[in-house]
Amino acid sequence: MPAKDLDTIVALAKRRGFIYPGSDIYGGLANSWDYGPLGVELKNNIQQWWWERFVQRRADMVGIDAAILMNPKVWEASGHVASFNDAMVDCKSCKARHRADHLIEHKYPDEKVDGKSPEELTEIIREREIACPKCGNKDFTDARTFNLLFGTNIGAVEGEGSEVYLRGEIAQAMFVNFKNVLDTTRVKLPFGIASVGRAFRNEITPGNFTFRTLEFDLMEFEYFIREADWEEQFSYWLNQQQEWLAEMGLDAEKTRIREHTDDELSHYSKRTVDVEYETPFGWKEMFGLAYRTDFDLKNHMEHSGVDMRYTDPETKEKFVPHVIEPTFGLTRLLLMYLLDRYDEEGEGKDKRVVLRLHPRLAPYKVAVFPLVKNKENIVGRAKEIFDELLNHFPAVWDERGNIGKRYFSQDEIGTPFCVTIDYQTLEDGTVTIRDRDSAEQERIAADKLVLHIGDQLGL
Amino acid sequence: MPAKDLDTIVALAKRRGFIYPGSDIYGGLANSWDYGPLGVELKNNIQQWWWERFVQRRADMVGIDAAILMNPKVWEASGHVASFNDAMVDCKSCKARHRADHLIEHKYPDEKVDGKSPEELTEIIREREIACPKCGNKDFTDARTFNLLFGTNIGAVEGEGSEVYLRGEIAQAMFVNFKNVLDTTRVKLPFGIASVGRAFRNEITPGNFTFRTLEFDLMEFEYFIREADWEEQFSYWLNQQQEWLAEMGLDAEKTRIREHTDDELSHYSKRTVDVEYETPFGWKEMFGLAYRTDFDLKNHMEHSGVDMRYTDPETKEKFVPHVIEPTFGLTRLLLMYLLDRYDEEGEGKDKRVVLRLHPRLAPYKVAVFPLVKNKENIVGRAKEIFDELLNHFPAVWDERGNIGKRYFSQDEIGTPFCVTIDYQTLEDGTVTIRDRDSAEQERIAADKLVLHIGDQLGL
Repeated sequence: MPAKDLDTIVALAKRRGFIYPGSDIYGGLANSWDYGPLGVELKNNIQQWWWERFVQRRADMVGIDAAILMNPKVWEASGHVASFNDAMVDCKSCKARHRADHLIEHKYPDEKVDGKSPEELTEIIREREIACPKCGNKDFTDARTFNLLFGTNIGAVEGEGSEVYLRGEIAQAMFVNFKNVLDTTRVKLPFGIASVGRAFRNEITPGNFTFRTLEFDLMEFEYFIREADWEEQFSYWLNQQQEWLAEMGLDAEKTRIREHTDDELSHYSKRTVDVEYETPFGWKEMFGLAYRTDFDLKNHMEHSGVDMRYTDPETKEKFVPHVIEPTFGLTRLLLMYLLDRYDEEGEGKDKRVVLRLHPRLAPYKVAVFPLVKNKENIVGRAKEIFDELLNHFPAVWDERGNIGKRYFSQDEIGTPFCVTIDYQTLEDGTVTIRDRDSAEQERIAADKLVLHIGDQLGL
Repeated sequence: MPAKDLDTIVALAKRRGFIYPGSDIYGGLANSWDYGPLGVELKNNIQQWWWERFVQRRADMVGIDAAILMNPKVWEASGHVASFNDAMVDCKSCKARHRADHLIEHKYPDEKVDGKSPEELTEIIREREIACPKCGNKDFTDARTFNLLFGTNIGAVEGEGSEVYLRGEIAQAMFVNFKNVLDTTRVKLPFGIASVGRAFRNEITPGNFTFRTLEFDLMEFEYFIREADWEEQFSYWLNQQQEWLAEMGLDAEKTRIREHTDDELSHYSKRTVDVEYETPFGWKEMFGLAYRTDFDLKNHMEHSGVDMRYTDPETKEKFVPHVIEPTFGLTRLLLMYLLDRYDEEGEGKDKRVVLRLHPRLAPYKVAVFPLVKNKENIVGRAKEIFDELLNHFPAVWDERGNIGKRYFSQDEIGTPFCVTIDYQTLEDGTVTIRDRDSAEQERIAADKLVLHIGDQLGL
């Protein structure tokens, strides 16, 4: 049973150190969030799994890691400077600013808003007599567009510097580096360039925890193909995205594929789908998959004057490759994964919360408990076992409270195994190892722990 | 023999896909750089080793990953808004802008510039009759200070938004989250909070490749201690920094410890040292280690009004911990590591370039070569072996040119092992495995390759 509401996850995330409000002691900042000790491990584990699965274990994929500040010409060529906009309206009464499409969607979820012009959105708001969610009045300005790129200035003196943008997406760097990758590696079509990193969008965030934030981490790749292969490749990558979700153990019932309608499709895309997840605040995009044709490379070729064509090694034919773009929102996936893997079991004092994380993604793989705190020789032996485990796996020590409470505390953060050291350990060298999901316990020799846990984790 | 000059490394880095100029097809941007297919693997490997060694394998360390945009009050409290400045002078003839300290250091390397005021720097420039490196004239403006924080605006409309800064260092987030970490984990003094991430400084970069850039990645932690322990802890962490360099195989002759003089010391630091590396452009800071007293926590406590004191679990005494801060520049370390591990061997046609990377850090662990390209059954068998290896290690395929050239090509990027599949493989199932450093070859059974390489890599 996944989390019933977002608040459950927000509270757990803060209480156990997954996610804290950003700049917390100063009252926060515009829905920003910091990943705490458990959150950073979970995030790194997702990212490393993705990188291993989609980049390192494939002969047809290479990675890059690009600067966040790029030459502004990149964003002019990509169209972001001209049209990476949100349409906004201001309430004339209370001065609150709203995204025009969100205002409509919030009241009429079935109204089509994607792809609509500011004029069309203004008309819908007036016709439907939509009220300001803050003050209840129905007197808005016309919708106006605002650019989502954060600007800053390079150079020592304000006004004299040159304006640049924080990247609004990570895809452009993979197009801009296409020629460099072609020239310095031995890739042949079809192949992909992958990247993980932070992007920034200056938008009004609706406040659904980490779902939409000013800065966020993306994992994605541009997969370069021959035009004729696009339908086959599109199916293949959609399948790959779903396969990975299954490997992570995400509930398939909570995900669905949504085709973009013609209204929504970017002018250069022939097909785009979202892989959506059913959150407590509705079905929301988790992954995206777009067939971007040869739009991006052609565009950069035109604007930069650099020849971005690929030469077929057999036929010597030169052409601009087409592109399939699978996008995986890292911070968004993390939130949906927490929602999905949250579980409650039992009643009353036996009730426990279990985060059923894939062992590979769990922040700690094992917790170590000495049974009797004041018996120094048990604690001493437990410390030895803990140190040995810590040499092999992320591990955590807990000597507080009764063992049942310690189990519950680890279940709540998804630790797959708990190991208890007691009097019997001193006598026969065995320990109790307890499994998170089944809650079953067995006694095994302490010197077999590393092998046993490694086996169970598939490491 | 390390690289004699920086150009050798710049050329290798670009030619083989370690590091490309940022925004390359648009003529670059202000000395920015993108990490290519090999560079991103090397960078990730360094970062993951650091994280495992200093965070995951220690019971006294936890990690965080904070937002790049923080509440501006953080930077007011830390003093960055008021005094994170460079003193700059403009040449009145050619209008070139220079960092005053660099202008002096460039001409008189022994002149003390750290800690000097703009007025003092101006006086030195005049007294020493320093000329503009660009036009040769000696007519500069007085030195003026410019803030190094990049500013941007949150909010949809320019002018109406609130100004925020891109973080100029990653340390502040660890202080700001100190209380959250205390409240949500079971850390006890002494303990550390660690972080890896990007920082931004709006400065004039001298152009030594990736040594000093507008954006760069740091790895560091704040280690919270009792005041009485600072000298012991300082020594311990200095030792840890040097031990890690030794584990990576860095040439100890090329590193040294430099104590900050009283002039250089920040007003709150009682001792700071740099771990320096001898680059082709001089001895430069690679790591830093500072005893920051209780300055930062006290400061944030005062500015935020939040009680940041630690309560001793035994004595119940409340106090603000002191801090030791070991800083590891990730992008800087990567450059110095490439310089250090570069080697040339032999003469004439036997001359080879070898990157003697630690196997753990090498982008690829193994390369696979089919001996005779046009014999389909050799290529077929080689592909099977390659696929099997790729399931276990980052691996690369090469079927071009003679085997000697393929060896040289892998040596240059630091691949520890090359495996060649030939006619004999089809007969007796053995392959040739060749070691990068010794260049020695031996025949082993193909089905033992994964175990053999895993053993050698210590995986």
